[in-house]
Amino acid sequence: MAAAAVAGLSCVLCERTYAPEDVLYACPSCGPLGTLRVRYDYRWIAPEFQPRRLPRRKESLNMWRYYPLLPVGEGWRRFPLPVGWTPLTPAPRLRRALGLRNLHLKDDTRNPTASLKDRASAVAVVRALEAGYPEVACASTGNAAASLAGLAAAAGLSSRIFLPASAPRAKVAQLLAYGSTVYSIQGSYDQAFDLCVQACQRFGWYCRNTGYNPYMVEGKKTVALEIAEQLGWRCPDKVVVPVGDGCIISGVWKGFWDLYQLGITDRLPQLIAVQAEGSQAIRLALEGDGQLRPVKARTIADSISVDLPRNGAMAVQDIRASGGLAVAVSDEEIMHGVLLLARQAGIFVEPAAGASLAGLLKLLEANKVGASETVVLLATGGGLKDVDSVLKATDAPAAVAPALGAIVRRVEQER
Amino acid sequence: MAAAAVAGLSCVLCERTYAPEDVLYACPSCGPLGTLRVRYDYRWIAPEFQPRRLPRRKESLNMWRYYPLLPVGEGWRRFPLPVGWTPLTPAPRLRRALGLRNLHLKDDTRNPTASLKDRASAVAVVRALEAGYPEVACASTGNAAASLAGLAAAAGLSSRIFLPASAPRAKVAQLLAYGSTVYSIQGSYDQAFDLCVQACQRFGWYCRNTGYNPYMVEGKKTVALEIAEQLGWRCPDKVVVPVGDGCIISGVWKGFWDLYQLGITDRLPQLIAVQAEGSQAIRLALEGDGQLRPVKARTIADSISVDLPRNGAMAVQDIRASGGLAVAVSDEEIMHGVLLLARQAGIFVEPAAGASLAGLLKLLEANKVGASETVVLLATGGGLKDVDSVLKATDAPAAVAPALGAIVRRVEQER
Repeated sequence: MAAAAVAGLSCVLCERTYAPEDVLYACPSCGPLGTLRVRYDYRWIAPEFQPRRLPRRKESLNMWRYYPLLPVGEGWRRFPLPVGWTPLTPAPRLRRALGLRNLHLKDDTRNPTASLKDRASAVAVVRALEAGYPEVACASTGNAAASLAGLAAAAGLSSRIFLPASAPRAKVAQLLAYGSTVYSIQGSYDQAFDLCVQACQRFGWYCRNTGYNPYMVEGKKTVALEIAEQLGWRCPDKVVVPVGDGCIISGVWKGFWDLYQLGITDRLPQLIAVQAEGSQAIRLALEGDGQLRPVKARTIADSISVDLPRNGAMAVQDIRASGGLAVAVSDEEIMHGVLLLARQAGIFVEPAAGASLAGLLKLLEANKVGASETVVLLATGGGLKDVDSVLKATDAPAAVAPALGAIVRRVEQER
Repeated sequence: MAAAAVAGLSCVLCERTYAPEDVLYACPSCGPLGTLRVRYDYRWIAPEFQPRRLPRRKESLNMWRYYPLLPVGEGWRRFPLPVGWTPLTPAPRLRRALGLRNLHLKDDTRNPTASLKDRASAVAVVRALEAGYPEVACASTGNAAASLAGLAAAAGLSSRIFLPASAPRAKVAQLLAYGSTVYSIQGSYDQAFDLCVQACQRFGWYCRNTGYNPYMVEGKKTVALEIAEQLGWRCPDKVVVPVGDGCIISGVWKGFWDLYQLGITDRLPQLIAVQAEGSQAIRLALEGDGQLRPVKARTIADSISVDLPRNGAMAVQDIRASGGLAVAVSDEEIMHGVLLLARQAGIFVEPAAGASLAGLLKLLEANKVGASETVVLLATGGGLKDVDSVLKATDAPAAVAPALGAIVRRVEQER
């Protein structure tokens, strides 16, 4: 079952619909930017997907527990690494510091390759295996690439990665450790993206590119399904999401949408999109005429640094449908968010994820969050992926001679 | 209950016993190297600790599920971050590659600060809170420090870290992100260790130093309790552990020992200690007269680089009691282990953890592992903590111009 659950695909630009077997990736009429929504027949799924019928074994605490709602067949049973079922943490000190008594952090840094992207890559790997592809590929600023490389390695698939030359070295090291074939494209993410699509067509590789592959949103939606389950099948008031290409935020929306359609929850959350000031094409479209126009992206948060958001049209539609909004934060505010999250909640994230806390602080300043609202902040990627930003934003440790007297003097200076 | 469960402490050197309220850290007669074993009255614990009475709620899947066997009081209930209950992964491709059909990987890179040390630091933080200490401190090559810093931050305690000058930059960045006060001691780990003990005595900080604080083994033992539970309350044949100070391997032993004493398992595993060739004081003691003598440590695996192992006497006793053995591996073998684990299992570890796979390969070469034995390999720390080692051990990615023709030529060259 399950893969059969996909009833159709519809283009976010021209609204044409397609049967799932007729189209592999984006809309044939609109090209790569014509991203497709995956549609289900909920009447067919409803009997299969009931909270009280979800598996209870401890081994089933991973994203595949929701497989009647996922676009995969039985291939998920062979998937070797546990992805998902990451902690939803209450963060008592951060709650007090912000005056938000129902704040939760969804800690997706705990995934196998330390980012939320593992949820999408897991779907990509299972679909590639089920369709008999020996090789998978993607273009990525880093997290999607590392996640595809790691999960493909675990499953025995070769991976090819199209990386923009600016990717942080920790993300490059992850790829090399996992044994991917890495092409360092001497150009932007956007150039790497288009090149990867062309190379996949030419060589018959399975393409995991964000937006272009319609099933990545479906993998990412498992974060929303987990949040709802961890809240006792309640829907939060607001979900705060760092946004680059816009695929994660559409995944969050899709998960809550599925639950609402199935009658498991009785409402939908408001989406708060946080973009870097230097990469805010989605915010500009939302606050303007809704049309996406490329920017010249420049931000410390490499994971959300995008000229033309590849899932942007869908993200704009989803944020609007949720009654949500977008905020932009500076690089300085982003690093403040990283340090605040580490120091108040003990969760060390990369700059993109620090952006979500920075965005929440902006909402609080503007009195746009109520003290008793249930707010979920997504921690999308681990801080060890970009330590340079932290080393730049903090003072170097004090060098001290190995003698008690030297320590005593130092401690007394601090007072 | 629980903290009261500690019946006494006994010195591994002079065998004197102490009441838990009479001694804070090491044996008063033997000094800092007189590490203490924590003794329980199992008759008293047995009714409280039964597999079928363990909590069933999904929120209870963390190390505190075993609290009747832990040296903490009710303070654990206020602990804000989930530590432990990390995956025990079958790794099918690695099983086939090694010909070991019952191999499992215990993936402790999934802990909050990406290492097994979180298990010990969680006990340190709870004990410090329960005893009313406002500040905690430790000397560490990196993982223990990062873990104490992160968990202390989450719980609202200040932390002070004594770091040897050679610590990798990612581990320093973690500490700075968490807001620790870091002293970069211009000397070795061993000097930083002694200095931290003295400073804690002088300023009244809670000391988390490995070995010196007898309760760290108790935190680390939860990895063994989980392995047993994840195997359906069976004891594996062999557990392969990277060894520096020797505290993790004693923790593994203690966990299985507790279960054996409680009659939950019917045997004990064989411990396989893997040391770096450049830091093998414990192996030399085991194969010699049992006495530990300092070495001049030098290895790529910073987490197991130790001149004089601070928990060495206990580790030697435990490995002998288990009928186990120690193997030494070169830096080159360690990096081979890192890459093999990433490429066959999709788990990216730091060099110290790569050592455990390198050690297993040595055992296989020497025909010291049976193909059907249940072998558990500990993945003790995440690979993002030391990306320089991986970048040195692999070829840099190919630079490719952003044009399809350039990619096609490149792919054809690879064939």
